[in-house]
Amino acid sequence: MKYFVTGGAGFIGSNMVDRILARGDEVVAYDNFSTGRREFLEQASQNSSFTLVEGDTLDREKLAYAMQGCDFVFHFAANADVRMGCEHPKKDLEQNTIATFYVLEAMRKNKISRIGFSSTGSVYGEAEVVPTPEQAPFPVQTSLYGASKLACEGLLGAYAEGFGYTVYIFRFVSILGERYTHGHVFDFYKKLKENPKSLHILGNGKQRKSYLYVQDCLDAVFTVIEQAKEKVNIYNLGTDEYCEVNDSASWIAQRMGLEPEFTYAGGDRGWVGDNPLIYLDTGKVRSLGWKPKYGIRDGVLKTVDFLENNEWVFEVRR
Amino acid sequence: MKYFVTGGAGFIGSNMVDRILARGDEVVAYDNFSTGRREFLEQASQNSSFTLVEGDTLDREKLAYAMQGCDFVFHFAANADVRMGCEHPKKDLEQNTIATFYVLEAMRKNKISRIGFSSTGSVYGEAEVVPTPEQAPFPVQTSLYGASKLACEGLLGAYAEGFGYTVYIFRFVSILGERYTHGHVFDFYKKLKENPKSLHILGNGKQRKSYLYVQDCLDAVFTVIEQAKEKVNIYNLGTDEYCEVNDSASWIAQRMGLEPEFTYAGGDRGWVGDNPLIYLDTGKVRSLGWKPKYGIRDGVLKTVDFLENNEWVFEVRR
Repeated sequence: MKYFVTGGAGFIGSNMVDRILARGDEVVAYDNFSTGRREFLEQASQNSSFTLVEGDTLDREKLAYAMQGCDFVFHFAANADVRMGCEHPKKDLEQNTIATFYVLEAMRKNKISRIGFSSTGSVYGEAEVVPTPEQAPFPVQTSLYGASKLACEGLLGAYAEGFGYTVYIFRFVSILGERYTHGHVFDFYKKLKENPKSLHILGNGKQRKSYLYVQDCLDAVFTVIEQAKEKVNIYNLGTDEYCEVNDSASWIAQRMGLEPEFTYAGGDRGWVGDNPLIYLDTGKVRSLGWKPKYGIRDGVLKTVDFLENNEWVFEVRR
Repeated sequence: MKYFVTGGAGFIGSNMVDRILARGDEVVAYDNFSTGRREFLEQASQNSSFTLVEGDTLDREKLAYAMQGCDFVFHFAANADVRMGCEHPKKDLEQNTIATFYVLEAMRKNKISRIGFSSTGSVYGEAEVVPTPEQAPFPVQTSLYGASKLACEGLLGAYAEGFGYTVYIFRFVSILGERYTHGHVFDFYKKLKENPKSLHILGNGKQRKSYLYVQDCLDAVFTVIEQAKEKVNIYNLGTDEYCEVNDSASWIAQRMGLEPEFTYAGGDRGWVGDNPLIYLDTGKVRSLGWKPKYGIRDGVLKTVDFLENNEWVFEVRR
């Protein structure tokens, strides 16, 4: 079995690469290194079953060429900059929607028909039903990021119907753990290193979020791929708990041995389109026998430990 | 009040142009004439409140320039070739998703914040709940057309949240009436003119569809715009009835004074991604006081009458 992983040098992608190699399979990592890091693939690079191709998902030709001979695609490359959508609305369209179209077309060219896709709980917008199940009422989008991921899901569904693909759509909560380089734990850690006495929090700190540890996430992904039997398989992935941003900030500070004062930007959300509560009903994936080994607090602490041991991730690259 | 209508020379668009002029407002019709017809704008052209701009929605600069001074955008231009999505998957992405992004960006440039958008009942995929309400369970897409319209809806929602737009999303059933030049009535009429003795029907003829007469549709659009008060206003538009393709074929033949034999391609759907039943719950728009004046049979007969009086629409253009 040979896998193709877009965003293979990224947080979730590089962990997936290592997981695939640990399973004894082959893998091609495809990444443009806009946010991915070569360091995350150091271990993989020692393995003869690993191939790295530096390329952009918007480079159709290279993408299709690199995919040759693969059996399964994990499409994880994306603009994950949820908060800044309104600053550059084109980014989500291009790097998520259009790039996913190119991935699906490259698969068609290479006669590959199975794909696992990293969607997001953001597609539920401001969910009316919480915890939110996969069959929630048809949502209204509230962010360009969520809208672009929904557009990708739609493309996957249409390719499943039109071209016989089997698709696995994973609606993630935020993922935490080793190689995490983007999001609130990263931001809080960085701010606290700069100023250990005070931490400024977007919103009122009461936004509730759910998180999942990356290895639990990968366990869930393979559980679904091995057991789900539909053309279009859609699964929420998350923990059955949530925390407030305040909780998370306290855990981070505590792990760093700090006692900062919290200050707040105010309002019930961190940014335009931010959802005060993303909390998914994970009954569907649990019904396949999966459950997370780690809770949210574990995930936050593991992430802090990773950042403490890898402060090079904060260095600005040129 | 000055309106901007993309697809302004098309079936629904040109009827909207006439309606706007009849209301005493100004209108700019924007059309690339790929399927729109200059003949549909002959009457409008006599009116000093009417402006025609020939342009493509993918031509960002021209689009933004043409939109100057307008207050409200009706975005009706689209690839409406639902059936052929798999022959050219890029068409729906470009002409629907990306074009809609350009329309939204052109509005931003011109500080226009209100838009009415022609979505489709196809976004419900193979609906589990029938008649299907706006709040149906989160659907799986089954066609590239539906997926692209869903992507557009997502963009509209995100722009409403992120940029303060007010958006009106209309999920149409198929529309019938004067200037109809695309769809089963057109195809059946054309086939029966070529061979009055026999009519070949895709699928088994038992696919059930709902249709709405174009003037009823426009009544509903203005009812919603005048009364709905949300940032994102989503309304199904349709009649509270459906017919089988067989019924419709019989009405068409009868109106043409023919008694053809029906033959069938077989299967429970007309094409890949076709939904055997699109039938929308229109309780939401009815609650605003709107109801259709014409039933499906009326709409079919009016369409046949239009085609009989305008056979030039069948001429192949160069």
